[in-house]
Formats: sequence, structure tokens, C-alpha cells
Amino acid sequence: MPKLNIVKIGGAVIENEAKLLPFLEEFAALKGPKILVHGGGKKATLWAEKMGIPVQLKDGRRITDAATLELISGIYAGQLNKTIVAHLQVFGCNGLGLSGADGNAIEAKKRPVKAIDYGFVGDVTKVNSSLFVQLLDQGIVPVCCALTHDGKGQLLNTNADTIAAEIGKALAKDHTTKINYCFELPGVMKDINRADSLIEKINTESYQDLLLNNTISAGMLPKLHNAFDALHAGVAEVAIGSTKMMNENVPYTSITLK
Amino acid sequence: MPKLNIVKIGGAVIENEAKLLPFLEEFAALKGPKILVHGGGKKATLWAEKMGIPVQLKDGRRITDAATLELISGIYAGQLNKTIVAHLQVFGCNGLGLSGADGNAIEAKKRPVKAIDYGFVGDVTKVNSSLFVQLLDQGIVPVCCALTHDGKGQLLNTNADTIAAEIGKALAKDHTTKINYCFELPGVMKDINRADSLIEKINTESYQDLLLNNTISAGMLPKLHNAFDALHAGVAEVAIGSTKMMNENVPYTSITLK
Repeated sequence: MPKLNIVKIGGAVIENEAKLLPFLEEFAALKGPKILVHGGGKKATLWAEKMGIPVQLKDGRRITDAATLELISGIYAGQLNKTIVAHLQVFGCNGLGLSGADGNAIEAKKRPVKAIDYGFVGDVTKVNSSLFVQLLDQGIVPVCCALTHDGKGQLLNTNADTIAAEIGKALAKDHTTKINYCFELPGVMKDINRADSLIEKINTESYQDLLLNNTISAGMLPKLHNAFDALHAGVAEVAIGSTKMMNENVPYTSITLK
Repeated sequence: MPKLNIVKIGGAVIENEAKLLPFLEEFAALKGPKILVHGGGKKATLWAEKMGIPVQLKDGRRITDAATLELISGIYAGQLNKTIVAHLQVFGCNGLGLSGADGNAIEAKKRPVKAIDYGFVGDVTKVNSSLFVQLLDQGIVPVCCALTHDGKGQLLNTNADTIAAEIGKALAKDHTTKINYCFELPGVMKDINRADSLIEKINTESYQDLLLNNTISAGMLPKLHNAFDALHAGVAEVAIGSTKMMNENVPYTSITLK
């Protein structure tokens, strides 16, 4: 089966051009078929403030109302996504930007209202594998932003980590798939206050130990949960680490089933 | 040679959902390979006002400074383009949005500064025909916004009419190409104050007569000039008329060389 790398990059790198360009150069140099998934960073909040769109929070989480959705469609799918693609083209990487609506790439369902109404937030229901495969076969590098659609004309806000995992799961049938979550730390840390506490390997067994030991930070727990969900669906490896792990021989956290 | 329809739709339809949705339904029903090109309407100006971005005008034309470019990247390539694609998907049309950067679809050069510095405005230098052909062969309908790139990481603002014409010229070698400019009138009017003065056919000879008679409105002159430029480059027909001309047997202005 051909190899496939899915790389997800988050806000801290995206919103800082001094970090974004070196990252894109590294990503462009990554060999073989690959897909980039990106979040949005703080720009949505900045534009919302300038435009006088009130930020609605429930339990510390931002509600995606209609005005916010319009803004993030603009920023994630437009301004950020096209800036990223334009720079990848310079680095010789044939990027092509996609939201979930484009070519019906990623369908999602509006999260049902229970205790909280998150607004226009979508949970992925279907990834159009054949679209991704056709584009990859053409030498195109899909660049996916954190926006999906419900197939009925409604755009939806979806977490970029989730998008990376769902694309990985869909393509894992026919590709040896590695999902790379790039962020600002060397990887999953036993103790986030100790720079030397990187956990280099996590498997099903050691994951149970880590959960029992209660050593993982709250922010990392959902990422590990999603990682194992992807692995159980056939993804070969989930890597969590710095952007350097793409091309350099640096330590990072490698997560596999066994 | 296979037929190809390129349809360009302007601001007046785009910015009004009551007009946009019926148009997209018509476009979705248009048979055969097709490409949609869209402008931006007034939203960019509205968002600029809300965000306190000053409008710079020179000779009545807006200068595309960096802040304006960022805004239009967001609105044209993001919010509008993805809304259009999401709605096309509902109507069974497999739209996929593209700026010029995506897949290196359309390269442009920043307009050189002469009497006026228009800012980040691009003149098209190259259309990636093979990308368009590959997408069309996959049953995908490219949906192009009015944004190009210079191949060096710079996004550029380019006129949507021009984009439609340049794509037409590039694909005319291998397709019997018709460019359809849809707007609010029945077509080119001999007298814009007379609803019954539609000119149904214009060719090289009659175009000269129209120019000599000084009967065409100032706004229509550049459109006719561009139309003949496209025809001379191999485009088979340029149609100017209402959106109804796509699927209904209504009069419109058909422009051909002979």
C-alpha cells in the first residue's frame, strides 16, 4: 500500500508568519503523498473584535453563531488557506485548498443541541476518499481548512484535529497512513513542566498505564483518545511532536496500537 | 472537440441570496462541462467599513492595498466561494472552489506602477489548462473566484470578467468554448434606456459599426473589447445576457467573429 502523511498544524504556527513560512518549507520537503490540515489561530477573534461581532462563550467554549461562521469561512477557507497554498506553490509543493464543501470532500452533521447549543459546529459523517485519491494521484497536495458542510448548503465549523483524524481513517484502507500532529512541544510530555520528560512511544498497553497514572495534561487527553480511535480504524501511526519531526531525526511521540 | 461553458456571474447576483440561489440552481442544470467564475459584490466594502479599513480611491477606482487584499481573500475565496460551492452541491453540481493559487490554477503578474499604483492587482499571465481539464474529466465543476497569485507567494486581486476570458482562451484549443457573462440586463442594449433595444448578434463587422455609431454604453465597451480578444484567441462564442439564457430560450447578445 502506498504511504500517506497527513500533517495537522495549529494556530500558534499559522498566525505567526515567522513560524508559518519555515513550517511550510519543511512540509513541502516532506517526501511522498501528503495532505495538510490547518486550524485558524486567533485571527477569527481579532476580526470579530474589529467588526463588533460579540464573542459568545458557553463553558469557556466559543459558540459558532451565523456571524462567526461567516467570519471563519472567510478567514480559514479564504485568507489563511490561500496564503498557505500560495506559499506552498513557491516551495514547489502543488497545494490545492479544500473546505469540506469543495468536491464534497468532507460531509458533517450539525452537532445536536443537548445541554449546550454550540451553533454551527459539525461532526464529520463522511470523507470523500476517492476525491482525495484522485487529487493525490495527480500530484496535488490537498490543503484542508477547518470547515465542513452538511450537504444541504450549510457550512460548519469542525475541529482541525478531528478533520485530520477522519481523513486518516477514510484513507487508511488503501494507504499506510501516518497522522502528524505538529505543535509547540517536542511531543507528549510526562510532566509538561519538565522539558526532558518526552514520552517517545505510546501503545495500547502503555496508554492504559498513563491514564491510570493520571500523568497526562488535560489538553492532551482528547488528542490521545482521538489518536487511538484513528489507530483502531486502521491508521498505522499517530505522531505528536514539533514540526521538525517531519524531516529531521528528532525525538517525538510515536503512537501505535502495538 | 468537447463543448465547454464558462459562466461568469457578478456582484449584483452574488450579494443577494434571493437571486444567488435561483442562479446556482440554473447553473447546476446547465448541461455538459462547465466552469463558474464569480466576482465579489459589495461585501468587501461592507466588511472594510466595519473593520475601519479606509477605502483608497484613485480616479474612482479602488486601490488594493495589503489590508484590502487580506479582506478580499477572505470574502471572495472564502466566504462567498464556499457558500456558492456548498449550495451547488445541494443542486447536484460537484463544485470545487479555486483561487489562482490552488493547484497553480491561474498565475498573474502585479500590474506595474505607471501613472497610478493600483496596489495588489494582477494581470493574468498563465492559466493551468491541464489542471482544469483533469478536474473537468473527473466530473468536477471548478468555481473560480476573482483572486490569482504571482507564483512567488503573493495573492493578487484580478477582475472576474478577465479571469473568465483568460480561462476561455486557454481551454479553447481543445474545447468548443462559450463564455457566458450573466448580468441584470437582457444583453447588450443599443440604448440602455430602451428595454426593447437588445442587440441579439454582434460580429466583427457589426462591432465596428457599433463603435463608429458611438451607441454602446461606456461600461459595456471594455466587455466587448475583451470578448473579441477572446474570440480572436479561439473562443467560439461570447454570450452577454441574463442568467435565464443558460437554460431557457430567451434572447441574449451572441458575439462571434463572423
